[in-house]
Amino acid sequence: MRAEFVNPFLASLLNVLKTMASMELAPQKPRVKKDEVARGDVSGLIGMIGPKTKGSMSITFDEPLALEIMQRMLGERPNGINEEVTDMVGEITNMVTGGAKRILADRGYDFEMATPAVVSGRGHTITHKCDGAIIIMPFDSEYGKAFIEICFDG
Amino acid sequence: MRAEFVNPFLASLLNVLKTMASMELAPQKPRVKKDEVARGDVSGLIGMIGPKTKGSMSITFDEPLALEIMQRMLGERPNGINEEVTDMVGEITNMVTGGAKRILADRGYDFEMATPAVVSGRGHTITHKCDGAIIIMPFDSEYGKAFIEICFDG
Repeated sequence: MRAEFVNPFLASLLNVLKTMASMELAPQKPRVKKDEVARGDVSGLIGMIGPKTKGSMSITFDEPLALEIMQRMLGERPNGINEEVTDMVGEITNMVTGGAKRILADRGYDFEMATPAVVSGRGHTITHKCDGAIIIMPFDSEYGKAFIEICFDG
Repeated sequence: MRAEFVNPFLASLLNVLKTMASMELAPQKPRVKKDEVARGDVSGLIGMIGPKTKGSMSITFDEPLALEIMQRMLGERPNGINEEVTDMVGEITNMVTGGAKRILADRGYDFEMATPAVVSGRGHTITHKCDGAIIIMPFDSEYGKAFIEICFDG
């Protein structure tokens, strides 16, 4: 897990939410996840495979934050996590990973993206199982928290 | 999403649990997931990428079934879903996908596996976001239910 993999994902989430939802998240300091547990209500997960490494990435949102993003992106606010919200989280997952992929390809780290899956369930946690360290990037907002977690082999 | 992708995953889960945990699951008929929602307490998720397609797979367990597999595989039974259980579910996810990968490679469908991630949270659901149909394979046991879900683009 290389440190230079962190910022492209962090910058990509800020950019996607600013562009698509006029939402400014406040990024906290990225750190290695040890005993820390990041809980959230809806998460997008995606696998990545390159010639030199493979890994996985998740983006987890508190429900009120996900619903606020939904309202700003699509002009509608469901009462809870429904299929439109999971579609949106899947799309955000694709866009954030695609943005990071372009930045990292310019630096000589190529990878391909699998298709995303979206987890829905109050207070769930995700544990990435790879050989390298898990990096957690917390984000604050007035509507709730978000987390990116990434892990790459090697 | 090709129908011949289904049986290798189904057979691989039965084989892994029989071999590793002396656990016989009763497979139910695989079906296309439409409005159906498969809930569970702990899930392994993995991305797959091949030259012609990409997709994702999840295996979801009820907590009592996951704990019974844990006891049979490792001789210990924690009180709930802890890191040892998520490690085991990640390993099962790798083994099942690896088994299916070998069967499918023999048939001319090659893919690479990303690293798995494990979701923990009571009654969570997973929605695979790909272009193809989502296939759900339910399994029964006296300890609880399990589900495989797979989805491939194209």
